[in-house]
Amino acid sequence: MKKVGFIGLGIMGIPMSLNILKKGFELTVYNRTFAKTIGLTQAGAKAVKTPLEVAQESEVIITMLTGPEAIDQVIFGKEGLFSALTDQKYLINMSSVSPTYTKELAQKLEPTGVKFIDAPVSGSKKPAEDGQLVILAGGKEEEVKGVEDVLLAMGKKVVYCGPVGQGSMMKMAINLLLGVMMAGMAEMIHFGQKGGLSKETMLEVLYSGALNCLLFQLKKDLFLEENFTPQFPLKHMSKDLRFVFQTAQETGAVIPEATTALQFFRIGEENGWGDEDFAAVYKVLQKMIS
Amino acid sequence: MKKVGFIGLGIMGIPMSLNILKKGFELTVYNRTFAKTIGLTQAGAKAVKTPLEVAQESEVIITMLTGPEAIDQVIFGKEGLFSALTDQKYLINMSSVSPTYTKELAQKLEPTGVKFIDAPVSGSKKPAEDGQLVILAGGKEEEVKGVEDVLLAMGKKVVYCGPVGQGSMMKMAINLLLGVMMAGMAEMIHFGQKGGLSKETMLEVLYSGALNCLLFQLKKDLFLEENFTPQFPLKHMSKDLRFVFQTAQETGAVIPEATTALQFFRIGEENGWGDEDFAAVYKVLQKMIS
Amino acid sequence: MKKVGFIGLGIMGIPMSLNILKKGFELTVYNRTFAKTIGLTQAGAKAVKTPLEVAQESEVIITMLTGPEAIDQVIFGKEGLFSALTDQKYLINMSSVSPTYTKELAQKLEPTGVKFIDAPVSGSKKPAEDGQLVILAGGKEEEVKGVEDVLLAMGKKVVYCGPVGQGSMMKMAINLLLGVMMAGMAEMIHFGQKGGLSKETMLEVLYSGALNCLLFQLKKDLFLEENFTPQFPLKHMSKDLRFVFQTAQETGAVIPEATTALQFFRIGEENGWGDEDFAAVYKVLQKMIS
Amino acid sequence: MKKVGFIGLGIMGIPMSLNILKKGFELTVYNRTFAKTIGLTQAGAKAVKTPLEVAQESEVIITMLTGPEAIDQVIFGKEGLFSALTDQKYLINMSSVSPTYTKELAQKLEPTGVKFIDAPVSGSKKPAEDGQLVILAGGKEEEVKGVEDVLLAMGKKVVYCGPVGQGSMMKMAINLLLGVMMAGMAEMIHFGQKGGLSKETMLEVLYSGALNCLLFQLKKDLFLEENFTPQFPLKHMSKDLRFVFQTAQETGAVIPEATTALQFFRIGEENGWGDEDFAAVYKVLQKMIS
Repeated sequence: MKKVGFIGLGIMGIPMSLNILKKGFELTVYNRTFAKTIGLTQAGAKAVKTPLEVAQESEVIITMLTGPEAIDQVIFGKEGLFSALTDQKYLINMSSVSPTYTKELAQKLEPTGVKFIDAPVSGSKKPAEDGQLVILAGGKEEEVKGVEDVLLAMGKKVVYCGPVGQGSMMKMAINLLLGVMMAGMAEMIHFGQKGGLSKETMLEVLYSGALNCLLFQLKKDLFLEENFTPQFPLKHMSKDLRFVFQTAQETGAVIPEATTALQFFRIGEENGWGDEDFAAVYKVLQKMIS
Repeated sequence: MKKVGFIGLGIMGIPMSLNILKKGFELTVYNRTFAKTIGLTQAGAKAVKTPLEVAQESEVIITMLTGPEAIDQVIFGKEGLFSALTDQKYLINMSSVSPTYTKELAQKLEPTGVKFIDAPVSGSKKPAEDGQLVILAGGKEEEVKGVEDVLLAMGKKVVYCGPVGQGSMMKMAINLLLGVMMAGMAEMIHFGQKGGLSKETMLEVLYSGALNCLLFQLKKDLFLEENFTPQFPLKHMSKDLRFVFQTAQETGAVIPEATTALQFFRIGEENGWGDEDFAAVYKVLQKMIS
Repeated sequence: MKKVGFIGLGIMGIPMSLNILKKGFELTVYNRTFAKTIGLTQAGAKAVKTPLEVAQESEVIITMLTGPEAIDQVIFGKEGLFSALTDQKYLINMSSVSPTYTKELAQKLEPTGVKFIDAPVSGSKKPAEDGQLVILAGGKEEEVKGVEDVLLAMGKKVVYCGPVGQGSMMKMAINLLLGVMMAGMAEMIHFGQKGGLSKETMLEVLYSGALNCLLFQLKKDLFLEENFTPQFPLKHMSKDLRFVFQTAQETGAVIPEATTALQFFRIGEENGWGDEDFAAVYKVLQKMIS
Repeated sequence: MKKVGFIGLGIMGIPMSLNILKKGFELTVYNRTFAKTIGLTQAGAKAVKTPLEVAQESEVIITMLTGPEAIDQVIFGKEGLFSALTDQKYLINMSSVSPTYTKELAQKLEPTGVKFIDAPVSGSKKPAEDGQLVILAGGKEEEVKGVEDVLLAMGKKVVYCGPVGQGSMMKMAINLLLGVMMAGMAEMIHFGQKGGLSKETMLEVLYSGALNCLLFQLKKDLFLEENFTPQFPLKHMSKDLRFVFQTAQETGAVIPEATTALQFFRIGEENGWGDEDFAAVYKVLQKMIS
């Protein structure tokens, strides 16, 4: 079985790497804060002190990090993994980044010959724990096939989206709709309340009809208690919609709903609600007329 | 069992009245085009030639019509049902209209003493046939209780929304989100295509995640074939969002997503796509940059 | 010279009727609050107690009122002027109302044969005092010509806009741009301040370039002192843009800037700033991120 | 008198450098396409073959280029001026760029000690020819004072806006309003036409009232003839509003009108109208419902 390396043990990275172990892969892990590797080593992983060592030990190297800066650091930084990349190895970036960044990264990696795949995921903490993520893969089709066993250790499904960058593009397309739907739900509740309806009754109707979906169910208590403990932080939604907007500026796509949503999420951030759940966009609407 | 009257045998009215019959209620029906009553009389209903006769024959009178004009006609027009209304009878308007119209209607009906309930539905043709509608009821709570047996003949659930007008208000709140979600789905597909993704792959991912809902599934073939045969006509969505907008102007609610959506549905109508499905809002986005 | 009647002695009506007097026309005036007629009678006008008497005394009757309700009252109400209208008389409505209302009014007046002209004005208090209004006239062209002497007593220019209703349509077109420009100026100042520029410097640059106009100059002190004493109340701008929006819904015009502006003026009203100057839309932007 | 260098002889650069000559300054010029220097040398300037030579010959070096790439090229590229910069010299960037780029550039220049000023202009070709530009200067106040004689050779006024970057910030604030006003004018004409008004009549009214400004006058023939020969190309407006949007994302400013305008200018570009005047945003509105 393939030797796998995993870099980035955050909320998503820990359950994802545990699932890789469970499927019997040999696993080497690295995290900037070394303490976070303990759970993994107890479960059978080997923890190392540098990204470079991960790459030396592994055929398939996975990065699951917060953004371009962190990724650049583990690849090109001091004791980064760059020098250990070869055309016999795979590098899979599962972090959420823009297609533009992904393509630039691919270009920088090209001289090493490494098989580079961009594979962000659809799904958050719970599906990650249950190995039920949907994996959005961009790269050469045969290379994606070549690591399907590793990817399916973490997810229920691998969707091939096209060349490198298209995994990120798909993630953005989904997140466009995610942002619009969340803003829409907040708007429905705000509108209904101004019209004299109760939140409870609105949610009851919403959950009984054709618009009902897991996203809306997950937000039930947040709206009822107006306590926006983060499932997906508002500042991340704001960042993702900013990527979407920039991409649309480049491709010429017309995205009025997403652009409107971005503005309201951004206002939420400016009000200091960036670390609350993105459903807190509701508070922006409420504040405007309070 | 109560004697029921049903006025308006359209796409929704026919299956709804058939379900009333099936539950054993005695049913009198009226439709402007008399021919449409045939299916009902074969199933055991009595067809009459005027709204007035419906009201004379029935304790519970239901209207399911296209809008204010048609409703005013059957109530206040020549041989309308107004003169037969008494405080022993119920009048249930299940047509989709604005809360403002509903409250005005309630005022005009007040002198008759009739128990007036506004009860639009959530759900379209299929749930109507299966008796699985969700019924959004506004009126006095005990009066809504008093016709629950009739309402449950048509739906799986009656949600009490508040005084007269609040059924319509709830319908608008739901339709606000409906419009935003449809515009959002169209935008996702448009955006993804401009970025090189295929519609098939996007839908596959959409249907695998937390945003998946019946609405999006129902639109699958429409998007894949770009054939927008109407399930819910775009012009109706446009009209409903116009109600939503007017209501928000009155209540002061802030509804940026719905307002953006309204503009694009309205453009769709202006392009002659009002009788296509409201998913055809996708064509507005495509056209703008073609 | 023609005998003129003037109904509605508000901020605009007083200077307008004074200018009619100055040009030597015989003038009869009416105002709901009789006290307001004093200045006019001192200047030589005759004050009467009912709209009907105005119409009986005059060949040219002018209405300058707050809106449809007030207009309906003086025309169709008790002792209204309706019964005195003949095909020998002119009725000129100079109040700002929607084209739809204007056309409905024209229809109701038709049986009297009265020559009906809709003639809202461009310009506010100061140009009214100076007789420098621009008068936007809708009606039959020869009938507009027939009262040009009276109109030019109040304004520097009569612009013929088309059949009845087109005066109001022109007024709305101008007010669309007025609303967008005011919202734009507020946005510029808000944006610049967030970027570290001073209001004084921004206004200096604005007044030195191609965007400089009387509107922006009139708002200088309001912005510098953040004291939005009304020149043109925000609630009127909100109402006018609502007319614009409704008209666009009917004609199919695409008005994204005006629709965005309407939403922000409406929020200003909801915050209790309806009676401040419409430049107070600036406070909406400031509040959202404070 | 100071020895001045001018780099970038485009539509703006040529009249600006001619005005410097006229005031008696010794002038060295450089342009990538050497042929464009001919008019200047005939008027008394010295043309050189590299940016480096300009810097070697001059105490005050001015750049007036199309954007960051061109600027980086003349400063840091092969035979760029970087190596000749000293704390005895001034470098004035008059090109329109973002505050972010300006601040980054200032940092890179710091080691040389050069007195760096950012000084974009308000005004286009005609005011440039007449020496009537308004110059928006950012930098140390005493350094801006130190080159006021040179700046006033080109403009009627130097407005001190704050530290380096604030000249660009001011330019963006003005261009925000420029974009909104142009989109608003287009919308007014589109709206009025759909309502049956003629373009001629609307413009007559517009030019008679408080909204009248040079910008709108300059666009008269473009709208009447629907021939959008560029005065200010649409793609530049689109780019400037993109800067504005990005800056607002950073500062947290709320700019709904400008964001709406950006979307419509961007659609214009996507339709191939980027090289037409930015008034062609009117064609976007027309196309949407044609």
